[in-house]
Parts: sequence; structure tokens; C-alpha cells
Amino acid sequence: RERERERERERVAVTLPALSCVALCGGTHGNELSGIYLVQETLKNKRKGEAMEAVTVVTVISNPRAVQQRVRYTETDLNRCFTYAMLSAPVSERTPYEIIRSQELNSLLGPKGSGQAVDLICDLHNTTANMGLCLITYADSDWICLHICKHLQMATIPVRYIHYDIPLSEAFSLESVGKHGFAMEIGPQPHGVIRSNIFTAMQEAVHLMLDWVRLFNSGTQFDEGSVDVYTMVKNIDYPRDPYTHNITAAVHPELQDRDFCLLYPGDPIFLSFSGEILRYKGKEPLYPFFINECAYYEKGVALLLARKSKVKIPAIQCSRA
Amino acid sequence: RERERERERERVAVTLPALSCVALCGGTHGNELSGIYLVQETLKNKRKGEAMEAVTVVTVISNPRAVQQRVRYTETDLNRCFTYAMLSAPVSERTPYEIIRSQELNSLLGPKGSGQAVDLICDLHNTTANMGLCLITYADSDWICLHICKHLQMATIPVRYIHYDIPLSEAFSLESVGKHGFAMEIGPQPHGVIRSNIFTAMQEAVHLMLDWVRLFNSGTQFDEGSVDVYTMVKNIDYPRDPYTHNITAAVHPELQDRDFCLLYPGDPIFLSFSGEILRYKGKEPLYPFFINECAYYEKGVALLLARKSKVKIPAIQCSRA
Repeated sequence: RERERERERERVAVTLPALSCVALCGGTHGNELSGIYLVQETLKNKRKGEAMEAVTVVTVISNPRAVQQRVRYTETDLNRCFTYAMLSAPVSERTPYEIIRSQELNSLLGPKGSGQAVDLICDLHNTTANMGLCLITYADSDWICLHICKHLQMATIPVRYIHYDIPLSEAFSLESVGKHGFAMEIGPQPHGVIRSNIFTAMQEAVHLMLDWVRLFNSGTQFDEGSVDVYTMVKNIDYPRDPYTHNITAAVHPELQDRDFCLLYPGDPIFLSFSGEILRYKGKEPLYPFFINECAYYEKGVALLLARKSKVKIPAIQCSRA
Repeated sequence: RERERERERERVAVTLPALSCVALCGGTHGNELSGIYLVQETLKNKRKGEAMEAVTVVTVISNPRAVQQRVRYTETDLNRCFTYAMLSAPVSERTPYEIIRSQELNSLLGPKGSGQAVDLICDLHNTTANMGLCLITYADSDWICLHICKHLQMATIPVRYIHYDIPLSEAFSLESVGKHGFAMEIGPQPHGVIRSNIFTAMQEAVHLMLDWVRLFNSGTQFDEGSVDVYTMVKNIDYPRDPYTHNITAAVHPELQDRDFCLLYPGDPIFLSFSGEILRYKGKEPLYPFFINECAYYEKGVALLLARKSKVKIPAIQCSRA
């Protein structure tokens, strides 16, 4: 009877191809230091040995020029350059470095949407927001990403799953080049700074992820379950002076650092420099995240808002090819 | 008898000239946002009125190009350009913008070391370090700065006095241009981000400072007392790879955010990316500050160390000119 049950479980498990090649990318933004040092450290240890692996891990410094200059990007945000349109744009002498680099990375890790693309891209990021660790993806039904998220939830830091509901063709960030992929976002950490606790948490999560991939590739079946998914609904900009476009308020102290704490209509969002409180005017309580992220001032985003839903995930197992 | 005592007190008080002109400077570093928005806000309120003042407050955005680009500096660190040598350096087409700007600021607020210089410069800064509010000066016997520090200690945030023991000729930062001056440093705040609590604390401190100046100018006598002064002794760099010069460790989690907590010989300072603990090898317990300041990676400084001493300050009063 025990054997029958096992067969039954195997029958219901979704089978998916092995993840033979995983790309671990850091420095897509040159001032987000955890991923850069983690990739460099992984590279060092690789050189020391570890040849016999059930999975090939490719390590990539995505934007070496930006890393060298310790800036997010040199001419345009690399992590907005991976739409099909930009990946196939003709290149001239005046093309920004980051567009050229996105096409190089697409050759190396893609081509996006093709069978030759790497199986999984994990792109390492930091944020100044108090978001803990988040996997950010374009899919709420990618069983690989969702199972990895579930597995990472045994880490010491809170782990959440964020879903940007954008079609693959419009998907603008590096992880969209892989067959599966996510940005691993972790904070709070100032850009240009490395904090040991954040580095250690990212290191732990990357190890857990690679452990999961090895288990998966070696035939382990992972049970069905569920994952809370935060789907991005809209963004809110800082209040700004209509003439100078300068911001006129900061995120309210009661909202600052409270990423993923439900924001209710009427809750304070901003405190203006002259002392005025501005409140959330939406009708639906939503989950704020990326609250006061440094890099989003220029993008007109003070915070993003998400709706939470519980996504059921099936049991999965590697197909025996 | 009461009157006699008052006369006695007046006799022992050090008399000092009025502080008729105070310069409030922000944006000496273009990505330290609190001071920039505070200066802009002060300017707005000034326009609204407040003509009849016992003190003239000059507001200055020190490095407008860097502010516009949201970077610390464009070519060289402005706040290292105020030595006598650099202020009198000949200017050519290849002179960095910040050197030209330091000479402009010296004309506006100085000349440094002359009788025409403004009476007091308060230069507003932010740090990623958990330093609370600090006044940083080149003097441990400037009764004006020390009395202001004592007065600010009624603020809600901890206020400390840091002393860089450097002669005026070598003093490199903007506040050295005034007859009296200090940098008002406040953190933790990521560069390029504004946090409401930090803005409010800086605003409170600036108001307290200007209140003190008004009281002083109007003849109030301030009692003798004492101030704890942290005198900078030395700095410690990150461990680095001898070939690439890349850092190989982060500040240890037990030291991170513990600015002004006494560091004892043998205490952990760094945790290397491979997991090794590095310890403080000094023989004397000292006070760490500027721990893991973003802008100091390029200067080879992971933290500074100070010796604490109690400085007695005399009663002071404005001389009736």
C-alpha cells in the first residue's frame, strides 16, 4: 500500500525538465554591492574546485562599467533594457552602453524566449527599502520559481514573492532572459554600502536555492503547497512642486520601513517639509513595498502597492529525460 | 547681594562678539538630501517674510551641480577643497569644478581667516553611519561651537561633539571658512534618500541653533559647564585584496551601527566574505564613529576612532560693542 501511495503521488506531480544551467548575476546595478561581492566570492571558490556538480552555475557581473564606477548605471538603467524591442534594436555609435550590454547578455544567457536560454536566472539586487528578501518575477504560475520561494522560506530572513503582471515581450529586466528567472531583492541596505547581515542573508538564500536545484535535478519530488503572492497594482509618486518638480514631502515616519504592512485608506503616507500630513486616498487596503527606494526617486515612485493572494502550487518532479 | 552676584557672574563670563551673520549650507555633498531640502525650505519661508531678525541667515546650496546630478561631487570632493593652498590655487581650464566652486564660496562666506568672514557656518551633512547628530569641528576650545553643542543636547536625538585636530591652514572643509563653524552631521540615512525622521531632527537642531544665536546676540549669558569631546585619533580601512584592492570583508554585525560604543582590544571589527572574523588589534579602547560610511570606501576608511575627554567651557556673553 505504501508503494501504491508513492506511485499515486508521482502520477499527480507535474514533471518539468532539469535545471542544468543556472546563471547567478550580480552588479546589474553597479552600486548594489551584496550581489557583486557574492558573485566574486562564488567565483573564487569555484576556482578552488567543485568541478563535479549536478548543475552548472554561470556567474556574471552584468554591468562591469557601472560596478567599476559604483553607480547604478552609466547611461541608462540596464535592468530596463531586456524587452524584445530593445534586445533587437539596431546599434549605432550613439547607442547607450547598457543597451549594447543587454544584447551581449542576451547572447550569453538567452536568447530570451528561445530553447537555448539558460534554465534559471537569479539576479541579485539590493534595496534601501525594508523589504527583507523578495523574489520578483513576471509569472504567478511558474512552479519552479514558486517552489524555490517556498524552499527559501526556511531562511532566517522573511521571504516574499512579488509578481509584476507584464507579458514576457514587455518584461524589461534581466531575469526575463532565462527559461525561468527572478530578481532576488534584499534590503534595507544603502546603495554603495555593504552590510554584513544583508550579505550573509543573501548568501544563505543563494545556497538554499542551489541546494533546491540539486535536489530537483536529482529526482526529488517536492510536495504541493501554496505561496502568498504579492501582485503589483500601482505606484504612488512623491508630492512634487509643479514648477521645479522637486519633491515637497518625505515618506511619513509611520509608513517608512513598514513594507508589506497593510496600508488602509486614510493612513498617513507623506509628511511634507512644512509639516503637513498626506494620507492614502485609495479605496482598497493594499500592501506597500519598495517604500522610499533610492533609485525610484528619478522614476517617480515613492512606493508600490500590491494585492496579496494565495497561489496553490502542485507537486513537481524532474522529468527523466 | 543678588545684584553683586550678577555682577560677579558677568565679570567671570568670557565676552565674545555678536554672531551677526550665520551661513546655513546644504548640498556640499549633492546626495546628502536632508540639508538640501532644509535649505530650500528655509529659503521659501524667508521669502514669506521674517525681515526683522537679530541675525542674518545666509542660505547656500554649496555644490549645485552635484545636487542636480544627485552625486556626492562631480570631479573632486568639494569638502576637501578649503585648505589655504587650494583656495589660492591658480585656475585654468582644467581645474575641477569643485575647486573653482570652493574659491567662489570663499569669496561669498570668507575669505577664510579674515575679519570679513561670516561669523558662523553651519554645514549640513548626512551619513549612512548610525551617528545620531554630531557637530564636527577643528577646535576643542571654540566656546561658541561648544556652547551651541551643549544647547543642542536638549534635542530629541543624541548630540555629540567631534574634534579633528588639524591646524586651520590644513582644515579642508567648508565650515573652516567662517570665524566659527561646524559640520552638522546626521544619520543613519542612505545617500540619495530622504528619511522624514532625520529631516525633522535636523530641522529641530537648526532651529535650536538659531534660537541660541538670537539669545546670545540679545545679551543672554550662558553658564559655564562641560561638553564631552571626541577627538579623532586614527582610521581603519577595510581588509583588501592586495592585487585588485577590492574589499574582502564587511564591518562585523556586532560593530555595525554601534557608533560611539567603546571598542575594546580583541573586539570583532570585520567579517570577511568567506566567514572569517577580524578583530581590533589596538591596545587602547577607543570610540568608533563613521562606521561603514558609504563615501569613505573610496577614501580607505571603514571607521574612525576617537578618544573622549570632558572639556570645561566658561560662561560666555556677547560683548556690547
